[in-house]
Amino acid sequence: MNIEAIATIVTPFSEKFAIPRQAQIVNQAIGTLQFSPAYQHPEYLNGLSAHSHYWLIWGFHQHEGKTKSQTVRPPRLGGNTAVGVFATRSPFRPNNLGLSVVKLQHIDKKRLTLKFSGVDMLSGSPVYDIKPYIPYADCCTSATSTWANDVPTPDFSVLFLPKVLRTLQAYDADQGTQLLALLQALLAYDARPAYKKTQATDTKRYATRLYTVDVAWRINGKTVTVIDAAVG
Amino acid sequence: MNIEAIATIVTPFSEKFAIPRQAQIVNQAIGTLQFSPAYQHPEYLNGLSAHSHYWLIWGFHQHEGKTKSQTVRPPRLGGNTAVGVFATRSPFRPNNLGLSVVKLQHIDKKRLTLKFSGVDMLSGSPVYDIKPYIPYADCCTSATSTWANDVPTPDFSVLFLPKVLRTLQAYDADQGTQLLALLQALLAYDARPAYKKTQATDTKRYATRLYTVDVAWRINGKTVTVIDAAVG
Repeated sequence: MNIEAIATIVTPFSEKFAIPRQAQIVNQAIGTLQFSPAYQHPEYLNGLSAHSHYWLIWGFHQHEGKTKSQTVRPPRLGGNTAVGVFATRSPFRPNNLGLSVVKLQHIDKKRLTLKFSGVDMLSGSPVYDIKPYIPYADCCTSATSTWANDVPTPDFSVLFLPKVLRTLQAYDADQGTQLLALLQALLAYDARPAYKKTQATDTKRYATRLYTVDVAWRINGKTVTVIDAAVG
Repeated sequence: MNIEAIATIVTPFSEKFAIPRQAQIVNQAIGTLQFSPAYQHPEYLNGLSAHSHYWLIWGFHQHEGKTKSQTVRPPRLGGNTAVGVFATRSPFRPNNLGLSVVKLQHIDKKRLTLKFSGVDMLSGSPVYDIKPYIPYADCCTSATSTWANDVPTPDFSVLFLPKVLRTLQAYDADQGTQLLALLQALLAYDARPAYKKTQATDTKRYATRLYTVDVAWRINGKTVTVIDAAVG
């Protein structure tokens, strides 16, 4: 079946590294959904405010056309145990479909855009459907999982070098973003591959791009220190 | 983007009328998922038993290629109020994608099939993805909806004419189904269009096909009477 993007979502995440592992973990991650030209009709916005949360069915578009394996090794299982891809939320899956529940923050009737918080997709990801979260049907309180039951707890305290703090504050003031708050929430979780997490000392410089800022940090014990932020 | 069915789901519902409005409302509705030839590998079953519930992303395949409207009239709003399609779970939507949380009941490693309860899709619907329900991420306790917050309560008592009861019991014994229990649960909800619900008297004979049985019923006040069941 051919499906077409009804929208594209612009998020702070311009590369895969350090994207939250599920939606809603980092509420400070805000995405702006822009309807595709064929869907730019104000009628599509009617009634959206009736629901607080929405499901987005979207695409892992950078994985399109790539060969996939029948099994994957989830980080939650330490990265060593292979399980069938349908037993996981791995992004490496047939049909490349992602599913995330996000919170509706703003409906811009003039620009025909929607703002959602708690996003976990790469910026520019195609969106194939938007469905309201139906509390009685979707909040399945009897559901259990042997290895994905608990909310991930933050691993680290996050510190910023003074010059980095100044750069981020200036960027937020200028761009209307909340990059400082986003980094504080995002880097509290350990985004490293499983083998790195068990290393006694880790001297690696980690880096990713958020919005238009190249951010770098180091990990020491239970502390993450953001050592660089270069706007460009 | 082209997506291919990784599986097909066989359900009791061979036509749209009387299908539950959401998944999980009628737990007695059991579906059997059969993997498509390219996905018939035992590896895909590895680890599935770790989770109790699964999301199916599937297709409203009978709506493919049909023209869609920007707005729809949800039954929950009485069928008169038009809202944008993305504010609803209407099956008449761009890309024809359905989303249902279902409970895993059985993994058949020999036949490579999966049994799920609480299904709400037409028999033969294509399945595009299977993802575990992640309790901490998917059970969004803060979600609200102005018109889809509450579990639908049953509208009717369900009675069976004696000859119908005998037919259904014989069918269940023969086929290993639970059609009697399914009908009891299914017909307790009012599946009629909104204008019919407000009619003072309703003399219409309603009918649908479940598995291979043509079932007919009448509504009188708060009672549904199943008046016919023809196996064929």
